[in-house]
Amino acid sequence: MAAVKLLGFWASPFVNRVQIALNLKRVSYENIEENLRAKSQLLLESNPIHKKVPVLIHGDKPISESLVIVEYIDEVWTDGPSILPSDPFARATARFWAAYITDKWWPLLTEYRTAEGEEAKAAAREKFVEGLVLLEEAFVKSSQGKGYFGGDEIGYLDVVLGSLLGWLRVREATQGVTFLDKNKAPQLAAWADRFTLNSAVVDVLPKTEKLVDLINSFTKTT
Amino acid sequence: MAAVKLLGFWASPFVNRVQIALNLKRVSYENIEENLRAKSQLLLESNPIHKKVPVLIHGDKPISESLVIVEYIDEVWTDGPSILPSDPFARATARFWAAYITDKWWPLLTEYRTAEGEEAKAAAREKFVEGLVLLEEAFVKSSQGKGYFGGDEIGYLDVVLGSLLGWLRVREATQGVTFLDKNKAPQLAAWADRFTLNSAVVDVLPKTEKLVDLINSFTKTT
Repeated sequence: MAAVKLLGFWASPFVNRVQIALNLKRVSYENIEENLRAKSQLLLESNPIHKKVPVLIHGDKPISESLVIVEYIDEVWTDGPSILPSDPFARATARFWAAYITDKWWPLLTEYRTAEGEEAKAAAREKFVEGLVLLEEAFVKSSQGKGYFGGDEIGYLDVVLGSLLGWLRVREATQGVTFLDKNKAPQLAAWADRFTLNSAVVDVLPKTEKLVDLINSFTKTT
Repeated sequence: MAAVKLLGFWASPFVNRVQIALNLKRVSYENIEENLRAKSQLLLESNPIHKKVPVLIHGDKPISESLVIVEYIDEVWTDGPSILPSDPFARATARFWAAYITDKWWPLLTEYRTAEGEEAKAAAREKFVEGLVLLEEAFVKSSQGKGYFGGDEIGYLDVVLGSLLGWLRVREATQGVTFLDKNKAPQLAAWADRFTLNSAVVDVLPKTEKLVDLINSFTKTT
């Protein structure tokens, strides 16, 4: 099997998606940390369109965009556990929610952060939690009483949503607000703890305090 | 095989994607035109999250989001020609460009439309054409000297990009500007004509004058 390299950055949830997927498949890879303020020639050449991490380089083939990479990993390393469901309708449902999370729900967190005034903040949080409740319903349907969206094991939606948990917790810590509302989404709250401690995840998902330090280093004036 | 219904609207390029994919697979389906100003109960129940067309209803299973539906069709009707390439790297490349077209390139047309002043218009057109040139390069690599992104037959990227041609031509007609620049993207310009006349496409892709009439009906004051 050709060598595998990952151009990434430890704090990027999109990079974390790829790292978790590679761990699930037990693929050995060289993890190359990029300096995002001085991107490597390899990154610029491997992803000339977006110039962004993650890029997976498999042999001499570069693949970009986290969701595209996760599907690629699932299709190439077929020996490991399946990441996407095998049933076409379940696959379509997982892809539908992945698009919802990426395009609609996650941007609501930025809407919260930039909302001005208490009333606007409260309304933005409310919208975010409404989306969370939709995801709770999707979890109940998809997990069928088991621990993950993927059933007994982590699957595609676990990776897509779970990768965002680090940043969700940072926003909770820094803004003094609860997003992962245990009353509104009790099953997802329990899933989040379970996901974080999973052996494919625990060393990948950044700790809250490390992310807080990172934010502080950006905003520090020296 | 369970009955297939498509909740759509003839002028939507996203609906057109699904119609072309069903034609490629020679799947018979009931085409249900929605009134987007008074959406049917079936649409609201089938796509409660976005309340948008297209929705494919296969038996009792509703599937939403055009790219998700196209992949579903490819995975369910395996008798027909493959829509996505079979090689994982080619699949990843096709999905990468589909995301580029949807998230980055197509929105540039709106940027052009809303740009104010000649200079801003020219700059917006330039950006759009730069993206077109990237797509020309992707076409050259993907088609390998054959007629379509998919080779001899229409594939995923043909469907994703080709479905937008009707609206691209409307914008050219109504704004007196060339987007599909034959000097900058000669192969794509030839591909566009070939795609439009393909038997799976010709009765699906709306004619420019019909789309112009539609726009006029929206803006008419009575």
